[in-house]
Amino acid sequence: MSPTTALSTSSSLTTLFPFSSSTTKSKPTNFTQFPFRFSPKNPTLNLTSSTARSAVSIEKEVLETERPDTFLRESDDDDKEPSSTSSVRARFEKMIRDAQDSVCQAIEAVDGGGKFKEDVWSRPGGGGGISRVLQDGAVWEKAGVNVSVVYGVMPPEAYRAAKAAATDQKPGPIPFFAAGISSVLHPKNPFAPTLHFNYRYFETDAPKDIPGAPRQWWFGGGTDFTPAYIFEEDVKHFHSTQKKACDKFDPTFYPRFKKWCDDYFYIKHRNERRGLGGIFFDDLNDYDQEMLLSFASECANSVVPAYIPIIEKRKDTPFTEQNKAWQQLRRGRYVEFNLVYDRGTTFGLKTGGRIESILVSLPLSARWEYDHKPEEGSEEWKLLDACINPKEWI
Amino acid sequence: MSPTTALSTSSSLTTLFPFSSSTTKSKPTNFTQFPFRFSPKNPTLNLTSSTARSAVSIEKEVLETERPDTFLRESDDDDKEPSSTSSVRARFEKMIRDAQDSVCQAIEAVDGGGKFKEDVWSRPGGGGGISRVLQDGAVWEKAGVNVSVVYGVMPPEAYRAAKAAATDQKPGPIPFFAAGISSVLHPKNPFAPTLHFNYRYFETDAPKDIPGAPRQWWFGGGTDFTPAYIFEEDVKHFHSTQKKACDKFDPTFYPRFKKWCDDYFYIKHRNERRGLGGIFFDDLNDYDQEMLLSFASECANSVVPAYIPIIEKRKDTPFTEQNKAWQQLRRGRYVEFNLVYDRGTTFGLKTGGRIESILVSLPLSARWEYDHKPEEGSEEWKLLDACINPKEWI
Repeated sequence: MSPTTALSTSSSLTTLFPFSSSTTKSKPTNFTQFPFRFSPKNPTLNLTSSTARSAVSIEKEVLETERPDTFLRESDDDDKEPSSTSSVRARFEKMIRDAQDSVCQAIEAVDGGGKFKEDVWSRPGGGGGISRVLQDGAVWEKAGVNVSVVYGVMPPEAYRAAKAAATDQKPGPIPFFAAGISSVLHPKNPFAPTLHFNYRYFETDAPKDIPGAPRQWWFGGGTDFTPAYIFEEDVKHFHSTQKKACDKFDPTFYPRFKKWCDDYFYIKHRNERRGLGGIFFDDLNDYDQEMLLSFASECANSVVPAYIPIIEKRKDTPFTEQNKAWQQLRRGRYVEFNLVYDRGTTFGLKTGGRIESILVSLPLSARWEYDHKPEEGSEEWKLLDACINPKEWI
Repeated sequence: MSPTTALSTSSSLTTLFPFSSSTTKSKPTNFTQFPFRFSPKNPTLNLTSSTARSAVSIEKEVLETERPDTFLRESDDDDKEPSSTSSVRARFEKMIRDAQDSVCQAIEAVDGGGKFKEDVWSRPGGGGGISRVLQDGAVWEKAGVNVSVVYGVMPPEAYRAAKAAATDQKPGPIPFFAAGISSVLHPKNPFAPTLHFNYRYFETDAPKDIPGAPRQWWFGGGTDFTPAYIFEEDVKHFHSTQKKACDKFDPTFYPRFKKWCDDYFYIKHRNERRGLGGIFFDDLNDYDQEMLLSFASECANSVVPAYIPIIEKRKDTPFTEQNKAWQQLRRGRYVEFNLVYDRGTTFGLKTGGRIESILVSLPLSARWEYDHKPEEGSEEWKLLDACINPKEWI
């Protein structure tokens, strides 16, 4: 796993920050921390460094009864109706909220039984989020789709890591904005894969105390899937849909982000990936900003066509107890990845984020058998082999 | 949670060190690390400090077909038959191996169906272990009882933290010896509690490069239990047995070690303990060494009388699906504690210990429901309340 990916990304439902999905139901979180991006330019900057432990204050969240039109501060919301001339912040927020709606609609339509339960929350000074969870549906065991907008303050080290400042002068803490969508979908049928996706956008203010130092921005995210059994046509369809989204923007994106995904979702102590990958990227700022906004939108909009046809094909496949036990063992791996490695989850647990939002990414149930080894050549063995030795699927 | 307990102890089956239960089945582990004891005398010494990351080499383990009489080096084994005049090392090893036998015999006798599977391993230069796992028995879902003996080298900081050296001169790396027993027992019936116990003994050599600096030693361990439902008579019986063992040695032991246990098995992100506690201690060296050896033996010998009568009473209690689901949710908490907080587990996963030995402490299955809240006043609520607000049971 490259240190870049290990320290800068999250597959938890809290999207951006562990603290982004809190509600008034949880205990007050008066102080929290910024999970720094790790940059090769500043390899000493990581979550365990002493700088990373310096807390920044964040307002307590308020539970809302209605969804507001926007979670942006008024000063940011340059148009009441986001248009092509609106700020990137406003258009990104609109994009993730539309994506949340369309994914949830598609899930409910296929599920036929389950309905999403929604929690809306905001912070007095701006920012907030919408958490939606469907549990014990007909098709999905547990499905969470969250969006959030956060205004916070990050230590100067994070700013400097993001882009080498034009000066050696050290700025003070930098206000930042972040917005994102994050989702984990665990179906019941062991032949139907789990899906995770997460797209996020960051902006910092320009440091006031360093004349000429720029505002910074970057995009991150990805979509990956985790079947318990390989249907080659499903894997090809999933990866092809990701590649198609990437290829519209840059032919290098898919191969780069496919590898990045394999590297990030690596369970080091098992020497296995948690699943069959997809795409993953972070810290993207060395392309045109409008192009990357369109790319992130394209990726988010590719979730339904990449995933739903596979679910429709597999949701009613007959299965044995053995198939279910294997799915449960693989879900044990999912739990291991999320609790041990995922930066958003581990950071969230340590810094007092809303636990139920953070851990909604965990499956409804999981299993650990001592020294379980699938029989060589079996379908279970084939899946494990593909998790140990990532393949090129298309 | 006090930092002392957080950083110095382990509830994983690897007892002492993450690397203590490896076998040749696993990948070679040529380098590993010493999970330092944390001492208030040296609060900067912890697992994430840069000193703690310095690797020390350890030999690869060899799978054995038979149990040797001892895992001690010949030079340590001052008597072929350990007696009251043998070294503490030899007597501690004998004690934990006897305890392993008697606990496994008691488990098999009550289970009636399941049998322990045994793995024996050693290291050419001395040390080794015996891992025993019973899976899918009639009464226990998963039961692991491991003993191990380790010879290693620890950085000087760990020695100095153990007892302030009489000199400011910094010694080189210090050879150490450690032996321990560790066990987690997960029954099937939701009214039958999970048990964990772990007793360990450490010795360092005297630093050769500092004339007069002493050899050091200390004891650690504990026994705690984790029911899904409270039967007050069971909790009282369990704690009384612990208190009785403690009171034979020092009337301050039970209250001190009961609190230490509540502090250690704390799931910070939930503000809950994982269960109803028991006793826990570490770094004990400020009593007579013979007395502490007897105390550790007494504690290990109290496991069967503390636990088995409760299992016999509860193993066949009729239960509903709802009871089972609640047990599974509590097992989810067990997984969270072990993967997120337990020092032995988290350290083992990061440093290449034998994964199957480390993770045999995880339950066969576990469950996570979004925002599950037991109804106030229900039996489930009472258990949760006792995990949030530790009680004095006797």
